[in-house]
Amino acid sequence: MAKEGADMTEETQFMIDTNPGKEPEHVESSGDAKEMRAVVLAGFGGLNKLRVTKKAMPEPQDGEVKIRVKACGLNFLDLMVRQGSIDNPPKLPIVPGFECSGIVESVGENTAGFEIGDRVMAFVNYNAWAEVVCTPADFVYKMPEEMSFAEAAAFSLNFVAAYMMLFEVANLREGMSVLVHSAGGGVGQAVAQLCSTVPNVTVFGIASCSKHAAIRDSVTHLFDRNVDYMQEVQKISPEGVDIVLDCLCGENTAKGLTLLRPLGTYILYGASNMVTGETKSFFSFAKSWWQVEKVNPIKLYEENKVIAGFSLLNLLFKHGKCNLVKSVMDKLLCLFDQKKIKPVVDSLWALEEVKEAMQRIHDRGNVGKLILDVEKSPTPLMASDSTETSEAGEEEEEPEEDNDSKERMPFIH
Amino acid sequence: MAKEGADMTEETQFMIDTNPGKEPEHVESSGDAKEMRAVVLAGFGGLNKLRVTKKAMPEPQDGEVKIRVKACGLNFLDLMVRQGSIDNPPKLPIVPGFECSGIVESVGENTAGFEIGDRVMAFVNYNAWAEVVCTPADFVYKMPEEMSFAEAAAFSLNFVAAYMMLFEVANLREGMSVLVHSAGGGVGQAVAQLCSTVPNVTVFGIASCSKHAAIRDSVTHLFDRNVDYMQEVQKISPEGVDIVLDCLCGENTAKGLTLLRPLGTYILYGASNMVTGETKSFFSFAKSWWQVEKVNPIKLYEENKVIAGFSLLNLLFKHGKCNLVKSVMDKLLCLFDQKKIKPVVDSLWALEEVKEAMQRIHDRGNVGKLILDVEKSPTPLMASDSTETSEAGEEEEEPEEDNDSKERMPFIH
Repeated sequence: MAKEGADMTEETQFMIDTNPGKEPEHVESSGDAKEMRAVVLAGFGGLNKLRVTKKAMPEPQDGEVKIRVKACGLNFLDLMVRQGSIDNPPKLPIVPGFECSGIVESVGENTAGFEIGDRVMAFVNYNAWAEVVCTPADFVYKMPEEMSFAEAAAFSLNFVAAYMMLFEVANLREGMSVLVHSAGGGVGQAVAQLCSTVPNVTVFGIASCSKHAAIRDSVTHLFDRNVDYMQEVQKISPEGVDIVLDCLCGENTAKGLTLLRPLGTYILYGASNMVTGETKSFFSFAKSWWQVEKVNPIKLYEENKVIAGFSLLNLLFKHGKCNLVKSVMDKLLCLFDQKKIKPVVDSLWALEEVKEAMQRIHDRGNVGKLILDVEKSPTPLMASDSTETSEAGEEEEEPEEDNDSKERMPFIH
Repeated sequence: MAKEGADMTEETQFMIDTNPGKEPEHVESSGDAKEMRAVVLAGFGGLNKLRVTKKAMPEPQDGEVKIRVKACGLNFLDLMVRQGSIDNPPKLPIVPGFECSGIVESVGENTAGFEIGDRVMAFVNYNAWAEVVCTPADFVYKMPEEMSFAEAAAFSLNFVAAYMMLFEVANLREGMSVLVHSAGGGVGQAVAQLCSTVPNVTVFGIASCSKHAAIRDSVTHLFDRNVDYMQEVQKISPEGVDIVLDCLCGENTAKGLTLLRPLGTYILYGASNMVTGETKSFFSFAKSWWQVEKVNPIKLYEENKVIAGFSLLNLLFKHGKCNLVKSVMDKLLCLFDQKKIKPVVDSLWALEEVKEAMQRIHDRGNVGKLILDVEKSPTPLMASDSTETSEAGEEEEEPEEDNDSKERMPFIH
């Protein structure tokens, strides 16, 4: 196995093949207008598969917008992509990242609705973690004036997903109850805020104890993810809950279905339990596929229950629902203007700090969204701290020798 | 196995045990105020397990309404109950039937909202097919003046189920598409009418060819249930449909899920495919349970799909959702007043004709609802027709010898 720093030959060779103009890592600025800095994933596996390198500057195609990126969102899914723990993993190398905010630098032919200089946020089918991104105008939205670039990068995916699950897939109404896993994460915080726009909604949040102080006010009831939350919820609400939002999968699917009230809806919108200490292989997705409990439609009939799956990225990039997403974004921007919702930013990281940021989301240390701030310089290493962070997907790796893996102090928002 | 007519000893003995006041069958009127006529199911199996007999007059308990029944609805589920093809079949003997209309004859203590003489329709947890029924006031609704008793008995279950599936479980909106199996049945016709209250909804109906002429105008596209409807639907709508309503189960579940658009909802609201020629045993439910294809939540996630089960009777009698149903009934009665919906009655039958009525629903000969008209006298037998009707659930039975099984001419509405 290639050791980063100590033995980079394999990966270096690989990058030379695909990025002939590449420069050494940690380039601080993109002096050459034909090149840009980007985070590149060179192979599936641990943190050492990521690096910052120069890539050729993309140019907008027909119908596309070219964006000078200011901030990018980091999601748990990016970690699963890095491990290859998703269905149909992409062909490598790629630049990861599905969302960003920035300024329109140019537009392709037949691209309507945007002008150079527009402040925008956008979905990208990979490639977001770079200084410049091109994406179809259908996936680009103008930012409100009052929204910062970091907030915009924290907004799109989390709030659109939360809104569509609560109001499109389920039908959240006055007096209902919602259970949300990872209540401290980006989607969890968006769910909590959107629930508060409907009268008298009870939110059961599940989160690590370490986050409880920070998020206690955002939910009605808060439970430790390590306790038997089923029993706790049933104590408070013996009838169960109306909506369960689960990004974990595994045993939580059966628990979620059990907790549903009649006519209640369980929505699976992620499968982060697939990222475990034991697996980081291509097969972990398939493995989980077989391990997850199947649902009998006749049981749903007997119990008057609904089970749904929701993947915003598939909806956008596979299922062609960008018009629907645009209409949802319009509603969300109204709520933002009315100051009813506001994205929660956990911390800002330089592109060069992507490994530390990923470690933080892996350890579920974040409250709200992790943001890659493209213009930020890496925070100097703490001289006092040379402890290696242990990352669950990396047991088989040699310890990383390069400075990147030393802990940095993030810019906590 | 007991042979009806030829050898009734076993069932007679049975009825004497439980109904001490019983009279011979086919009592034309209930002269004795303490008794009433009712259809009784004495054992699970074929048509010969049903008979009309006298039973003790029920009296309303606390919170109940006593109804002098005018008309009862006959549903496919009643056929499954008769065969014992449902989960948790009831302890026999019972009076079947889940819905009726009639006039309030008295009310129990602590029963608010109803007065003697009110024209009402009601849900009953069995016992509907009788001259008199008592049921909690929570399940009773006042009838509009313009609604006939037959229409009322055709209204409650079908329209409430159709409405809740389209608007509570799914979220039918302008421009969507709906596929409905058994489009000619009571629920199917209610679905078609409710879809027409929303602009620009496409309805794909599946029904036996024999019904096509009668129901062609109620749906947008009509397919023969014996053709490959999937291919036909995909030809017209390559993207699939937004809502699939399936009362058949079996292979239609997988087909329905395949036909769904992203964010589409498949609703299983019955399992009439469980009633086959081969089985009529207690085990047929369990058998189908294992045969039906299970659904992987991760597949729903990948495909952005929703699968739901809907059982109105469980919702009412097990899950305590009578307030929600009442609010739905209010909305439906508004639509009825506005002449936007109108129950379709297929035919009226005397209690004594229940076997012929059941045969008709088994053969899927009905367009709209079959009604038991309590005040109707049995239609004289057709002298020219002495053919035995063959009923799929009865292969193991001796041919029935009593006159009941001879074909009658129903009163077609």
